[in-house]
Amino acid sequence: MRLSRYFLPVLKETPSEAQIVSHRLMLRAGLIRQHAAGIYNWLPIGYRVLRKIEQIVREEQDRSGAIEILMPTVQTAEVWKESGRYDDYGKEMLRIVDRHDRDMLYGPTHEEVVTDIFRSMVKSYKDLPKNLYQIQWKFRDEVRPRFGVMRGREFLMKDAYSFDLDEASARRAYNRMFVAYLNTFARLGMKAIPMRAATGPIGGNLSHEFLILAETGESGVFVHKGMLEKTVPANVDFDGDLQPIVDDWTSLYAATDEMHEASKEAELGDALVSARGIEVGHIFYFGTKYSKPMGCKVVGPDGQDVDLHMGSYGIGVSRLVGAIIEASHDDAGIIWPESVAPFKVGLINIKPGDAATDAVADDLYAKLEAAGVEVLYDDRADERAGAKFATADLIGLPWQLVVGPKGVAAGVVELKNRRSGEKVEMSVEAALAKLTA
Amino acid sequence: MRLSRYFLPVLKETPSEAQIVSHRLMLRAGLIRQHAAGIYNWLPIGYRVLRKIEQIVREEQDRSGAIEILMPTVQTAEVWKESGRYDDYGKEMLRIVDRHDRDMLYGPTHEEVVTDIFRSMVKSYKDLPKNLYQIQWKFRDEVRPRFGVMRGREFLMKDAYSFDLDEASARRAYNRMFVAYLNTFARLGMKAIPMRAATGPIGGNLSHEFLILAETGESGVFVHKGMLEKTVPANVDFDGDLQPIVDDWTSLYAATDEMHEASKEAELGDALVSARGIEVGHIFYFGTKYSKPMGCKVVGPDGQDVDLHMGSYGIGVSRLVGAIIEASHDDAGIIWPESVAPFKVGLINIKPGDAATDAVADDLYAKLEAAGVEVLYDDRADERAGAKFATADLIGLPWQLVVGPKGVAAGVVELKNRRSGEKVEMSVEAALAKLTA
Repeated sequence: MRLSRYFLPVLKETPSEAQIVSHRLMLRAGLIRQHAAGIYNWLPIGYRVLRKIEQIVREEQDRSGAIEILMPTVQTAEVWKESGRYDDYGKEMLRIVDRHDRDMLYGPTHEEVVTDIFRSMVKSYKDLPKNLYQIQWKFRDEVRPRFGVMRGREFLMKDAYSFDLDEASARRAYNRMFVAYLNTFARLGMKAIPMRAATGPIGGNLSHEFLILAETGESGVFVHKGMLEKTVPANVDFDGDLQPIVDDWTSLYAATDEMHEASKEAELGDALVSARGIEVGHIFYFGTKYSKPMGCKVVGPDGQDVDLHMGSYGIGVSRLVGAIIEASHDDAGIIWPESVAPFKVGLINIKPGDAATDAVADDLYAKLEAAGVEVLYDDRADERAGAKFATADLIGLPWQLVVGPKGVAAGVVELKNRRSGEKVEMSVEAALAKLTA
Repeated sequence: MRLSRYFLPVLKETPSEAQIVSHRLMLRAGLIRQHAAGIYNWLPIGYRVLRKIEQIVREEQDRSGAIEILMPTVQTAEVWKESGRYDDYGKEMLRIVDRHDRDMLYGPTHEEVVTDIFRSMVKSYKDLPKNLYQIQWKFRDEVRPRFGVMRGREFLMKDAYSFDLDEASARRAYNRMFVAYLNTFARLGMKAIPMRAATGPIGGNLSHEFLILAETGESGVFVHKGMLEKTVPANVDFDGDLQPIVDDWTSLYAATDEMHEASKEAELGDALVSARGIEVGHIFYFGTKYSKPMGCKVVGPDGQDVDLHMGSYGIGVSRLVGAIIEASHDDAGIIWPESVAPFKVGLINIKPGDAATDAVADDLYAKLEAAGVEVLYDDRADERAGAKFATADLIGLPWQLVVGPKGVAAGVVELKNRRSGEKVEMSVEAALAKLTA
């Protein structure tokens, strides 16, 4: 993409309304623009990041055996009255009355809708287990939306719902999501730690939160230092027994400040690490909480009806954009992990209009594009080199490839790694080889 | 994907509420399930088709130079009051009051929101032209939603918005979308015909509808038979002059029953074809209708402020799922064009449990998956062969690859083309070669 044709509205000033670094950087780097309180427009590079995260989440859900569907954003109140949550949910639920005076709402979550699908379409234990997931926009009418996409009102979530015949099978479904989450966050370039969590309004008695560690995180966390060194298992067989992996990842102490136990921490001594984290995933097993009131049951092997055991599993997809920035930035701007970067390479022509420089830069652009490398080509004629470097650092692409007249005369270009800051001069061929490897 | 693990809730009976064939087939083949009037759940194969259409639409928008963003579904009423449409829009607009008693709405379209983005972020003529698009869910509170996804309330649209300095430049933007639409519908396997259209509530004085021809289409259309033979130009240069292409595609008579002129049709004589069509795209040039009241202007080359010339360009993405089925089905079910089929191949094991048959079918499944071919593997142990064939015809995958004990003993499998009905016995190797070619 040529920047001269793109839409990258970078702000020079830091917006005063932004209290946290990810919010400031998302506004400054032109990722988002506020439409109304807690409601954002996703601008081109922001939306590219969001879609990359979404795709990684999707692939790891698919790999675990979950099946993608899409439920509507606007729901009828009827199913919420059946589950008993319509009156409980309070003012966070955005309630809507349609032209025929029917009570509707903008879904804050989809337990009721998916249970309604399942009860009408699945009749036999032979069709179990199943895990249906979606990646869909939701709305929670927060009283004080803030921190940009970290606590917005309209937000994108992955939510999965498992249906099983009994608790043991439901526990296996829970374990599959637990491991899928480890894989997902690792692919996003993040260190995420599962912590035993309160179940809150979703209900149930087994629940874990996944928190990304970031110095600027919203929650205090207390973890055994061994948690920080665990590696995510490779090539997991999701048909196999995942309990050992889950046991391993829950064997050491890890708790948010809401759930922590001072007595246990005292025992840990030097092994205790106190840090900060951002919640990016939450998984629940809640048994028959929804299936029983909503009549979601199947005929079991013995011919008797069985209420299904359910769990639900969320990942905050739009929140992750902010969370990744909180965990990965410096004073100059964002530092994207390569897996979610809006482009892999920022190609900077420091003197557009200079024929020799243009020839090298245009050729590099064409060859990188032809090789399938995502490049943002800063070909703007009316910006100084310094402004181009500042923009490149701010938007945080993993690699900056700098082409200028002096280097071109000497037969070299400069390749900068955004994360390490390391700059290396090399031939055009060497730069191409490195970026297309 | 193994069907035994998938979620494909096929209905045996034709649902009585469905009046048109696409709605019937989408319910029967398990593509959608109604949640509330005009609001649908997208089940796994339906959602796969929707996403494939979305991706083709996206690629053709990108190729034409449009830039993807995402605007929120929930909008503030303020921008609609600025444009003057808030009171005009009537009951089709789903109005919402949030917890702080602010007037909000679920966007039926996004002219106001995108104009608000543009006016705040683009200040100079040097940043023009621009075309920003999104693929986003919208809501129109239809008084009588019907025909399934063809006239639903919550629906997915691609909507693009162009911004230009003057009418001539805006006309070029219009032409780029015109040609992008020809490419898009051709890639979807459809014959789409542009027709001069009324501009309605969007406003403006230049507009075309694109209609897919289908015997069961909602609108009568009258076209010069030459329109049916036109081919879509290949490898268009979107930086070049597209006027000749647009002129060619608008040179012959084509009109919907709403706009047709009997006198012109009489002149055509035998060249007139009367058919039926389904509207799947609509493009508008409307000049300064929104930019002027909303103050969307830039500094022009002479230092004076200029109100921007705008157009908007829609494709009904979810509607296309129904429209393609209307145009491509038979008595047995759907016939997907390969570009949007949920899977390319239905692999049918007609005797699961028979060791030799399982070995061949499992091996074919593994090899097709490894080659990146999308396969739905009907490995169900409890269904008769007849039911499997009926399901395969109903869901309409382009190829059915049938593996049974008799064929396996003779060293052959059967490959059926869903569209032509042609069945050919061939070796496993030949079938693999054909399907991975």
